[in-house]
Amino acid sequence: MHIGFIGLGNMGAPMARNLLGARHRLSVFDLSQAAVKGLVEAGANAVHSVTDIAHSDVELIITMLPAASHVRQVYLGDSGLLSSVAPSVRLIDSSTIDPMSAREVAAIASKQGNPMLDAPVSGGTGGAEAGTLTFMVGGDTADYDAALSVLQSMGKNIVHCGPAGNGQVAKVANNMLLAISMIGVSEAMSLGVSLGMDAKVLAGIINTSSGRCWSSDTYNPYPGVIEGAPASRNYTGGFGTDLMLKDLGLATEAAKQQKQPVILGALAQQLYQTFSSQGHGTMDFSAIIKMYSGEDQ
Amino acid sequence: MHIGFIGLGNMGAPMARNLLGARHRLSVFDLSQAAVKGLVEAGANAVHSVTDIAHSDVELIITMLPAASHVRQVYLGDSGLLSSVAPSVRLIDSSTIDPMSAREVAAIASKQGNPMLDAPVSGGTGGAEAGTLTFMVGGDTADYDAALSVLQSMGKNIVHCGPAGNGQVAKVANNMLLAISMIGVSEAMSLGVSLGMDAKVLAGIINTSSGRCWSSDTYNPYPGVIEGAPASRNYTGGFGTDLMLKDLGLATEAAKQQKQPVILGALAQQLYQTFSSQGHGTMDFSAIIKMYSGEDQ
Amino acid sequence: MHIGFIGLGNMGAPMARNLLGARHRLSVFDLSQAAVKGLVEAGANAVHSVTDIAHSDVELIITMLPAASHVRQVYLGDSGLLSSVAPSVRLIDSSTIDPMSAREVAAIASKQGNPMLDAPVSGGTGGAEAGTLTFMVGGDTADYDAALSVLQSMGKNIVHCGPAGNGQVAKVANNMLLAISMIGVSEAMSLGVSLGMDAKVLAGIINTSSGRCWSSDTYNPYPGVIEGAPASRNYTGGFGTDLMLKDLGLATEAAKQQKQPVILGALAQQLYQTFSSQGHGTMDFSAIIKMYSGEDQ
Amino acid sequence: MHIGFIGLGNMGAPMARNLLGARHRLSVFDLSQAAVKGLVEAGANAVHSVTDIAHSDVELIITMLPAASHVRQVYLGDSGLLSSVAPSVRLIDSSTIDPMSAREVAAIASKQGNPMLDAPVSGGTGGAEAGTLTFMVGGDTADYDAALSVLQSMGKNIVHCGPAGNGQVAKVANNMLLAISMIGVSEAMSLGVSLGMDAKVLAGIINTSSGRCWSSDTYNPYPGVIEGAPASRNYTGGFGTDLMLKDLGLATEAAKQQKQPVILGALAQQLYQTFSSQGHGTMDFSAIIKMYSGEDQ
Repeated sequence: MHIGFIGLGNMGAPMARNLLGARHRLSVFDLSQAAVKGLVEAGANAVHSVTDIAHSDVELIITMLPAASHVRQVYLGDSGLLSSVAPSVRLIDSSTIDPMSAREVAAIASKQGNPMLDAPVSGGTGGAEAGTLTFMVGGDTADYDAALSVLQSMGKNIVHCGPAGNGQVAKVANNMLLAISMIGVSEAMSLGVSLGMDAKVLAGIINTSSGRCWSSDTYNPYPGVIEGAPASRNYTGGFGTDLMLKDLGLATEAAKQQKQPVILGALAQQLYQTFSSQGHGTMDFSAIIKMYSGEDQ
Repeated sequence: MHIGFIGLGNMGAPMARNLLGARHRLSVFDLSQAAVKGLVEAGANAVHSVTDIAHSDVELIITMLPAASHVRQVYLGDSGLLSSVAPSVRLIDSSTIDPMSAREVAAIASKQGNPMLDAPVSGGTGGAEAGTLTFMVGGDTADYDAALSVLQSMGKNIVHCGPAGNGQVAKVANNMLLAISMIGVSEAMSLGVSLGMDAKVLAGIINTSSGRCWSSDTYNPYPGVIEGAPASRNYTGGFGTDLMLKDLGLATEAAKQQKQPVILGALAQQLYQTFSSQGHGTMDFSAIIKMYSGEDQ
Repeated sequence: MHIGFIGLGNMGAPMARNLLGARHRLSVFDLSQAAVKGLVEAGANAVHSVTDIAHSDVELIITMLPAASHVRQVYLGDSGLLSSVAPSVRLIDSSTIDPMSAREVAAIASKQGNPMLDAPVSGGTGGAEAGTLTFMVGGDTADYDAALSVLQSMGKNIVHCGPAGNGQVAKVANNMLLAISMIGVSEAMSLGVSLGMDAKVLAGIINTSSGRCWSSDTYNPYPGVIEGAPASRNYTGGFGTDLMLKDLGLATEAAKQQKQPVILGALAQQLYQTFSSQGHGTMDFSAIIKMYSGEDQ
Repeated sequence: MHIGFIGLGNMGAPMARNLLGARHRLSVFDLSQAAVKGLVEAGANAVHSVTDIAHSDVELIITMLPAASHVRQVYLGDSGLLSSVAPSVRLIDSSTIDPMSAREVAAIASKQGNPMLDAPVSGGTGGAEAGTLTFMVGGDTADYDAALSVLQSMGKNIVHCGPAGNGQVAKVANNMLLAISMIGVSEAMSLGVSLGMDAKVLAGIINTSSGRCWSSDTYNPYPGVIEGAPASRNYTGGFGTDLMLKDLGLATEAAKQQKQPVILGALAQQLYQTFSSQGHGTMDFSAIIKMYSGEDQ
């Protein structure tokens, strides 16, 4: 299939490479020439603007952009995709943005005959490179079915979450819960260790009890408990604090618009903001446990 | 073995029955005549005071009491166990109390030659009846080994958590995390549903993603998501809000003594207190999701 | 002076009346015919669009609108003020909006030669009617001086807060603190009364001690403590919970953009949201004390 | 009058000196010889035990002790005051302790014929030295009246709060509100300054608006806003973070026993605990604003 790909950042670039690896033809665009060059060397065709992608004979366009403002500009802007793309070209936005914006763009696309899916991912740059991302997909079932094999070239776990926007809803709801759980595990581990328990023993008990969660049994923030977790390599790699902050911002903003309280979610956002403001925004988000260690941060 | 059992409440009574079922000889005491009568009909021998149990020829005494004040009275009071029990009789306290009190009583018992374990449980009255409780055990390894088969008559998962008091530490740390997770799941589910997602679909995604936790995949607070969970029977049965409040009180008090922050833990305690104050103290603790439903409570 | 006034709602209408009372000539516009009619009866001249006000010979235009989106439309929209207003006509926006939007609109206005002030108010509809509002004004000193006498026709306390946008900054910072203080007083009063103190005695002590604040000594949320406060008339009148929620939304959004933690501010927002979701959005914001009363809400 | 004084610490010593200055006869006791020596040089008579004070011919005994455990020991211990003091000797405990303990001791004292007041203070060591403390007094009106002139030798503002224990209630309620207000002011000031406002201008606006409070207009945490406040001398002097933590511990513990939610109070406690754990326990409590500055702490 001939696919257009817009946004070749830390996530987009390896995703695009995996499409090439699955023998799709690829036309790519990014504001960064260096990013484009890397993909061209891997076999992609470079185009010079969003409009050029819309004007090519692609059957599908995938976007991977930093925020809703970029998504709006690329799709709805004066020289945006929707002003020039041919009817029936399929659209997939894998950016993580607020559900309302996702729904608004998808409605406009759909109205003019371009089926659109929102398909934000989880799994980080590691998952993007290994092709093991999880895609949370919102949109019509027929469109989901049509896109499935392409998504499977880039990910392992492809989940249909319902109509347009629901991919974003699933992502912000899950990540808000993740943020809360990680702080919860940080507090439980710090409390237990301060009371004299061995960290590994405590984690072992939690992991077979009702406190069990991914933040404890797979990604425990206490150093040394889980080999290979960011906590065991000084919180490098993984999912950065500032990325988590972005998702918490989307979650609390969506909650505000729905007039839906998210008490712990909002507090988690503030604690991550406090931690980031102290200079730790690039550390893995599990480093939040340092707020509980009493050490000089 | 001849075992003394003190405290035949909702938890203690079925635990004692399971000991009888395992063909142990049982001498029991409780302030409630009705509770004693029930066990006598099941084959236990009634004694008339704590002292009488201490003066009998039991090899092991198990206590299951509501709070630290009762534990102190039964063990350290003027007519308490430690003033009259024969040397080398083993002691197990299965009450949930603060780790400091557990350590203090165990140290006094140990000093006079009575090996003591703290062994709080999780699993609720259902687990007590079915003999599937989890025991979190603090004390010397030799004492733990000696008690293992008796504990296995009452539970399925017996975990050694380290020296005296660590059973209590593990329990309060786990349950504080549980309280936080349950509120986190309540917020994530409420947010997702308010944004238009189907509750079961959302739970399914969370349960295979990084938000995965016991509160979502086993005990989801959203009605209808998990058949058999309290949420699917109007929050009856299960683990009552006021019991969770008691454990959160132990956790934050222990944290205060250790000068250890537990920010979400303390907020969870306040939210459960608010919910209980509105008249919901006897509902299962997963009913906290009602705080997020906007319905008249 | 001939003044244009756009936005004749609960606040705008009485403000406009006070300008008439001060013998200014007034041209007014509102989407509601009823609102316009009321002012015309009081002596104002009705115009039929925003553009008509811009095209009239007004020297000053005042806007009082619900949210930033309306402000953007009225000033920056295709038929907006800035596309048609004569050079050097002065502009005052008294809407409460986010500081960034206020600065953006003011910069555009200023660039095309229209001096603009942001001048949000506090004091509620009572203050608007009595002409005793507080105006928090952002903009150049010369523009502030030029507007002072007009603002004094509508308010009693006119404060220059610095350059454009600072009026909004002062308002959101003050109101976030107010929201926190009100909950703090609610908790202190509820705790003290639950421990056996008389509410008036407790308030009297706080009001002469280090807990002293406007929320306690002027607007105490405990019924009967302050005659004339909303708490003493079942929380009617005053400053509605949903209006406070709007200001807290502006404060936490501005904080997010500045990467500035506001931990209690965010929690206050969530507690007001919870309270509003339970059906109390139109009650005075001091009714938040009901969350602490344990009564059925 | 001949007065016994027990507890000559940072607060007790200057209070005792002021009694000498008012020409009372004083018999003093403290575990620290150095502390006793200082008072003897100022004219007091040293006695060698709590019992000795009880056995002397004092008409009134005042205690100023660190915590409830000391109060219990001094009054209720085997060689405590109540076991040996002559009938009708008046008792005043100026320690800050939980209301329940205060009421328990007062009830026992009263039952055996010794009128007792709880009379915790605010005003710090500065107020103790200058004789300008505030006394919050719980107990019978007649006993309050009888003690008034003695209290006036040590303080300026003597407030009767109701029956026994109410002095403690007033103190913990006020100080919990103070802790919340101080964090609220810290957030409002930090937010406003981050958005471009001058700190003094912002404080000036708040101080004449609905955010007005003692933490802003008298003790503002932002450096340079109030000359003479701890914030303007690097947070030295004043009321230490760990002392505020002690009072917050009393407040949340009393709330727990009353089943009374104190949501912001509990969060304030956790934030102060976090700040103290980072090594700032001896700084004035207004230094909590550093958590919001993003600077390395």
